[in-house]
Amino acid sequence: MKHEARLEPDLALAEALFASLREASLDPPGVTRDAYGPGEERAHALCIEAAKEAGLAVTRDFAGNSYATLPGKAEGGRTLLIGSHLDSVAHGGNYDGAAGVLAGLAALSGLVKANHRPEADVAVMMTRAEETVWFPVSFPGAKAALGRLPADALALKRSDTGRTLAEHMRALGFDPDAIAAGRRHLDPERIAGFVEAHIEQGPELIEVDRAVAIVPAISGGYRFRQARITGEYAHVGGAPKRVRRDAVAALAHIVAGINASWDRFEAEGHRIMTTFGVIGVDPAMATWSRVPGEARFTLDIRGVDLPALARMRHILDELIAEAEAKHGVTVTLGPDTGPRPGFLDEALVQRLRDCASARFIACHEMPSGGGHDALAFHEAGVPAAMLFIRNQNGSHNPDEAMEMADFAEAARILATLAATHQG
Amino acid sequence: MKHEARLEPDLALAEALFASLREASLDPPGVTRDAYGPGEERAHALCIEAAKEAGLAVTRDFAGNSYATLPGKAEGGRTLLIGSHLDSVAHGGNYDGAAGVLAGLAALSGLVKANHRPEADVAVMMTRAEETVWFPVSFPGAKAALGRLPADALALKRSDTGRTLAEHMRALGFDPDAIAAGRRHLDPERIAGFVEAHIEQGPELIEVDRAVAIVPAISGGYRFRQARITGEYAHVGGAPKRVRRDAVAALAHIVAGINASWDRFEAEGHRIMTTFGVIGVDPAMATWSRVPGEARFTLDIRGVDLPALARMRHILDELIAEAEAKHGVTVTLGPDTGPRPGFLDEALVQRLRDCASARFIACHEMPSGGGHDALAFHEAGVPAAMLFIRNQNGSHNPDEAMEMADFAEAARILATLAATHQG
Repeated sequence: MKHEARLEPDLALAEALFASLREASLDPPGVTRDAYGPGEERAHALCIEAAKEAGLAVTRDFAGNSYATLPGKAEGGRTLLIGSHLDSVAHGGNYDGAAGVLAGLAALSGLVKANHRPEADVAVMMTRAEETVWFPVSFPGAKAALGRLPADALALKRSDTGRTLAEHMRALGFDPDAIAAGRRHLDPERIAGFVEAHIEQGPELIEVDRAVAIVPAISGGYRFRQARITGEYAHVGGAPKRVRRDAVAALAHIVAGINASWDRFEAEGHRIMTTFGVIGVDPAMATWSRVPGEARFTLDIRGVDLPALARMRHILDELIAEAEAKHGVTVTLGPDTGPRPGFLDEALVQRLRDCASARFIACHEMPSGGGHDALAFHEAGVPAAMLFIRNQNGSHNPDEAMEMADFAEAARILATLAATHQG
Repeated sequence: MKHEARLEPDLALAEALFASLREASLDPPGVTRDAYGPGEERAHALCIEAAKEAGLAVTRDFAGNSYATLPGKAEGGRTLLIGSHLDSVAHGGNYDGAAGVLAGLAALSGLVKANHRPEADVAVMMTRAEETVWFPVSFPGAKAALGRLPADALALKRSDTGRTLAEHMRALGFDPDAIAAGRRHLDPERIAGFVEAHIEQGPELIEVDRAVAIVPAISGGYRFRQARITGEYAHVGGAPKRVRRDAVAALAHIVAGINASWDRFEAEGHRIMTTFGVIGVDPAMATWSRVPGEARFTLDIRGVDLPALARMRHILDELIAEAEAKHGVTVTLGPDTGPRPGFLDEALVQRLRDCASARFIACHEMPSGGGHDALAFHEAGVPAAMLFIRNQNGSHNPDEAMEMADFAEAARILATLAATHQG
């Protein structure tokens, strides 16, 4: 690994692309790159243009994922994919997703500049629609490429436009019929691995003072996006406590109960996360002068600690039974759309450790709290692994930040990984 | 009181008016009589027509309140007002407000049919805009008649139309300039009392098995309609508990804490009520995949037990301090628009007891949980009192119900009160 360990990623390319991506998707506060919409499409166009200029071979698949390939010395070997997504949440930051794509492009452009070709093909894959706030399905872009997106997902509607995934794909010139027909663009047998660099989205790398983490597992768990509490509306001054069926009081019992249990889990060293991201009442019915007869909420429970996840799920059922008994309401959780935790490929994880060592980069190791496209590859039987890049101010918000020096460390690891890819 | 005690209210008039009111304001589910809008205006027109047919003298004031007067034998005496409001909440029931107006009209029509004239004038007053879901001000109709509506209330906007109170008044031909100029239609010195019959809106009369209650006090307390919690948005999988500033978790702490304290108050026999009627997050920012950085809520705390009210207010401050410390958020309650509790006129309350006794009607006694127009008169120095009519399924909801037999008992008490009015 002597020679390859010195190959530098093309950081100038990455810096220029971060700036042009931000400019093209500015939507104060923050940036918006809407999945299968104009924002994401502009991001793909910019990255494709940069990849072409860098001398990479560019293609697209029927689902709109883009690929920038550095051909290997020999044909017939398995392709190594380095990738992430180019969409963002509404009013999000510039680095979530894009950092992984740009780290890959910088790595391959660096190899081109050094006239270095790996033994077999390495490609940067830019996926679509990873942020599930747009379409209520996980990783539709990556899954479609792998032939694993169920046909009925094409009928799912984007949360803001109300138009279906198929309609959005067609509007951009892609081919949802190929997805409906079960075609695949990527054969798992022909892929050596999928490696995704991504900003950490949390403070752990700041706390441990490391630029990069190697990620051996991705959190999964339970995800309820349509939970609902049904009680009864009543006049605020006319209904004493004993007759109330107060949906908000019931919700507070559940939220406070989960939070108290989470405190206990933390004290015991169990590392999971619970989030009630959306709560609300029916704006057409609820006023300050009515006991609320209905409430809705979302609940996400995630981690890689399987026994702790199961225990929190059981506690949720107990809290719901208590809330129903105490407040005379009915709680329905609705469908559970949570992915299972994914334990990534140990050999590929070891390859990342070796590449980091070759560059004298001391890496942290931690599981991912968020789901990522890497999970879709892992579930398809493709060896998958991830790198986290230290970042400031979390993610999915306008203040998301990242130091280019930290990004450069991840890009160096990827450059070494790509340079030494054997097929 | 021998003769007058036998005078029967005109229940046929009331029954016919309940039916025509329902038909004119049907808005499934329930009825909508929007304050200073078409729904309330149709209700006034129907009641005025019925009052004229019953032989009562009909007038309106500059704020759109309607009056149906049975002239007394002599001029110069003080007028007794019997009244309530004709607006309803959106998708509410047919009895909240209307029952008090129709009980008054039935009482006076009964006197007309019996050729009985009291010593001095008795009038049914039909007020406007009592339901504060429409305009964020209490009792604007009654207050305007009394010359006590602040001029700046005319600029308040209706929650659904966004048009001001003045604009709504003008559209119906009323005279907001008279209000701005501080004029009054009713001189407290010339009013013997204001008696309001109203459905109970709660289950207490059902539980004690009485048709009617005499109400010696009206609840007041604290009312926060614009409370807000500010934390920080963060990625759901990236932000561990220790760095979260979760507005929903903080809200749950406050709601669950107030509810637990309310349980203790109830066990101690302290009779107050607390309601979080509206909770929510910013729909443009909150998703299931983000730690919520902002939440808002309304909180109403009411009763007639002054020490208990003050204690709950103190507990609220403690809970807010705890939530801020534990969750790193900032809580602002916003303006407190709660009215003070109103202890009604003891002499008038005793008159109601005497009239009920004269008709052999055994009444319950209880404070009112809700604010009512009677409070506006009380605050203006007019002797005020109330009757509650037993009703089913609470109020402010489409299932609101009332037995005509119970209504008849209240109307009988009012008929006796009107018949024996001395001026």
